[in-house]
Amino acid sequence: MSERRSRRGRGGADARIEKTIKPFAERKIPYFDIISEADYQIIEDNAETILNEIGIEFRGDEEAIQMWRDAGCTIEGERVRFPRGLCRQLIQDNAPREYTQHARNPARTTIIGGDRMVNVPAYGSPFVSSLDFERRYATLDDFQNFVKLAYMCDSLHHSGGTVCEPVDIPVNKRHLDMVYAHMKYSDKPFMASVTAPERSQDTVDMLKILFGDDFYDENGEPKTFTSSLINANSPMTFDDTMLGALKVLARNNQATVVSPFILAGAMSPVAVAGTCSQILAESMAGMAFAQLIRPGAPVVFGTFSSSISMQSGAPTFGTPEPAQILYITAGLARRLGVPFRSGGGFCASKVVDAQAAVEAANTMSHSSMAGINFMLHTAGWLEGGLVMNYEKFVIDADQIGMAQRIIGGVDMTENGQAMDAIREVGPGKHYLGCAHTQRNFKDAFYLSPLTDNNSYEQWSAEGKLTMEQRANAYWKKLLAAYEAPPLDAETDAALQAFIEKRKNEMPDEIG
Amino acid sequence: MSERRSRRGRGGADARIEKTIKPFAERKIPYFDIISEADYQIIEDNAETILNEIGIEFRGDEEAIQMWRDAGCTIEGERVRFPRGLCRQLIQDNAPREYTQHARNPARTTIIGGDRMVNVPAYGSPFVSSLDFERRYATLDDFQNFVKLAYMCDSLHHSGGTVCEPVDIPVNKRHLDMVYAHMKYSDKPFMASVTAPERSQDTVDMLKILFGDDFYDENGEPKTFTSSLINANSPMTFDDTMLGALKVLARNNQATVVSPFILAGAMSPVAVAGTCSQILAESMAGMAFAQLIRPGAPVVFGTFSSSISMQSGAPTFGTPEPAQILYITAGLARRLGVPFRSGGGFCASKVVDAQAAVEAANTMSHSSMAGINFMLHTAGWLEGGLVMNYEKFVIDADQIGMAQRIIGGVDMTENGQAMDAIREVGPGKHYLGCAHTQRNFKDAFYLSPLTDNNSYEQWSAEGKLTMEQRANAYWKKLLAAYEAPPLDAETDAALQAFIEKRKNEMPDEIG
Repeated sequence: MSERRSRRGRGGADARIEKTIKPFAERKIPYFDIISEADYQIIEDNAETILNEIGIEFRGDEEAIQMWRDAGCTIEGERVRFPRGLCRQLIQDNAPREYTQHARNPARTTIIGGDRMVNVPAYGSPFVSSLDFERRYATLDDFQNFVKLAYMCDSLHHSGGTVCEPVDIPVNKRHLDMVYAHMKYSDKPFMASVTAPERSQDTVDMLKILFGDDFYDENGEPKTFTSSLINANSPMTFDDTMLGALKVLARNNQATVVSPFILAGAMSPVAVAGTCSQILAESMAGMAFAQLIRPGAPVVFGTFSSSISMQSGAPTFGTPEPAQILYITAGLARRLGVPFRSGGGFCASKVVDAQAAVEAANTMSHSSMAGINFMLHTAGWLEGGLVMNYEKFVIDADQIGMAQRIIGGVDMTENGQAMDAIREVGPGKHYLGCAHTQRNFKDAFYLSPLTDNNSYEQWSAEGKLTMEQRANAYWKKLLAAYEAPPLDAETDAALQAFIEKRKNEMPDEIG
Repeated sequence: MSERRSRRGRGGADARIEKTIKPFAERKIPYFDIISEADYQIIEDNAETILNEIGIEFRGDEEAIQMWRDAGCTIEGERVRFPRGLCRQLIQDNAPREYTQHARNPARTTIIGGDRMVNVPAYGSPFVSSLDFERRYATLDDFQNFVKLAYMCDSLHHSGGTVCEPVDIPVNKRHLDMVYAHMKYSDKPFMASVTAPERSQDTVDMLKILFGDDFYDENGEPKTFTSSLINANSPMTFDDTMLGALKVLARNNQATVVSPFILAGAMSPVAVAGTCSQILAESMAGMAFAQLIRPGAPVVFGTFSSSISMQSGAPTFGTPEPAQILYITAGLARRLGVPFRSGGGFCASKVVDAQAAVEAANTMSHSSMAGINFMLHTAGWLEGGLVMNYEKFVIDADQIGMAQRIIGGVDMTENGQAMDAIREVGPGKHYLGCAHTQRNFKDAFYLSPLTDNNSYEQWSAEGKLTMEQRANAYWKKLLAAYEAPPLDAETDAALQAFIEKRKNEMPDEIG
């Protein structure tokens, strides 16, 4: 039974994919620190001071308060003040340094943490846009399209979560359709619903249907199938929705990505070092709470850090200070010994213009150099995250493909040293035809499917297309070529029956 | 006399600028190495093997060949084979680790090398373009415009050299107008003409007019007023034009930026490590030659490294492999102990679209993180360098302003730690009005003049402008506000008389 169910559950293993695609990017270059050991210690010490003197509010969750009281904290209403070092100790004693996130296709099963980077689509946009239409509310069709596109992009290792909000589905039911889309239209790992504890539970119940007996490991413990976003309400607050979702997920050994949501200057000080201390304090409090719920529950140190324009108050992206925060918080996560999440293809631009491109490129190159394990918001993000854009999705996926090649390190073998080529060619000649080039040209350099490197004349003859126009053709080509990974009919029917039952239990809520 | 001349020569010192503008960006974060010490040693050893076994051709320059023979090299025709370690030794025994490049405004006098980054406009385009007109041949008007724009952009510390080719001026005379434009319309440091030895000499003669007795230091030695581009004809070749210019400049103690021009796959192997060995060998040969000409002549380890599409043969930019080459060659320069030059806002795109933006951003952020002292091609570069673009110029200048903020390090003072803000605000509140924010908001975050961070509604109401359109308005605003730095009439007349005399000595050559 277990064997039958597990075969059925895994569904779409594809020998072709297994051979060629890695379920994560591997970093083979050293890590960088932009501040000194003494500076890190100052930030860590300040984080402990925040936890100890100011404290964190756990709102609307009496169970959480009681658990912190039992753990030795000082409680004042919903404010929890922690003995210095308690959160760090809970994390370091219990949380895994890295964890396996299983996918229904074992070749897609990934590992979050260590020297790996897992790239995840953007998350949470109510709107979509493309070159074909101005921004409008997203639908379930759009959601499915982005799941399919993520499945088709080799540089995206993960199907994500709320890749856009399917606003055409009632707000209390759409999580079922979203989770189903990830299960049905992709075989990459994905994220659970976190918008209410019962929606997290629905995700877990659907995972049990999809994986059958494989939901549990040989000791009867749940395996980890989801990595899900738990935002702190910065500054220094967790609300009952996020705490409720975290509890359901952690109890089921599902990973939580505890992420202070920071627009520096509004939710944190207008200062890089101060913001890093606050992020560390908030993230540690959330990750430590997960360890109280279930010691050993996988957690990720998450940050979403941007800044605001101190002139208008508007969020800004791709600017220098958040890049510095990225480098520092990535270092803090390494020192703490947990995986690190940040993003991504951030931008404030409303269109896929030079602004969108530089902002996203700045964030992605610094993110990848800083060392991110879970790159949320990798692809599609536009307009401060309000919009998921079709063209930007494939442009971002291309960009992260380049970034992971950079961190993939340098071939220092004899073939990489290429002295045979230099000897063969000699002064004043070219390398185009030499033996080394013949041997290596196919894989030597990253090849972008979206850039145009042709002459002005050829580019003109081909219609003077911009990258956005080429991207428009490209995502349509990907969707046209999409084939769903196989999912056996019995599992599919069981999932659909579960969804129908749950939908019938609830009146529609319009979000 | 000396005092009068020197006052006249320096011309446009401007107290306002002196107070607010730095003549270079300062790096206050550590350097990064993407390969190990052992890997560096392999590349350095291979470079010595190239110099020793394969050798470098010094073409059409008997003096150079004789000098290398005298220095102990093996000569075979124009091929020079070097005793292992000779070039490195010549450089390390003689070349300065950093040097002062004087400007006529002492507040603009910069230092090339060490923990400094000097940003220089793009160089060498025959064409210009803007949103107002499709690409066309550049003119002297365009040249003057870009000198003025570079003067107006605080993030550009340098006026550059051939910011575009003034194709309307005869090819053998235009260097005089170009050098004059740098002297007249800017007071930032600039580059000498290198397209023929006599044009380098003209530059030196004009510097003597501009600076008068200040051309020499207190020991009667020429000061360094120019940093100029000497390309190697990769692979492993220097031609007589470049050698001739190098000799004139080095004899006059002017700095030479010895730069292998590499499109990897054509001028170097299709491999990162192999390309780095070749670049090091070529650059060391050129820098060592400058030390033979004048021991102590300032030199810069230059690289221009891109790759070609192995499908079409077209040059590509902003791709991963050249970024790796950047990090490694920057490290090789630090180990050698000389300043390092690379670029810049490279892109293959024909328009200021997302492609242009990501390619330029990728190169600039990795360049700045890698540690570049002389960032040539910082601003304006389009279409593989064939085109200087007005909008891209100001977009790139903005981007490098952000990059230099990142490498400028993190404020770890008590104000940067901002614990007073975190204590004042507390959980669930915002930081907008707290005392720390009031004290810091003006300078806390980089403010781009070109990005739009407003709401979709406001952006729509303002005409749905792209970054390219905003950049179009911005460079016009800069040009409209431009005021030339003062240059005394006597010096100006002497420069113009020199130019007239030289032009009259030559028939027109059409390039």
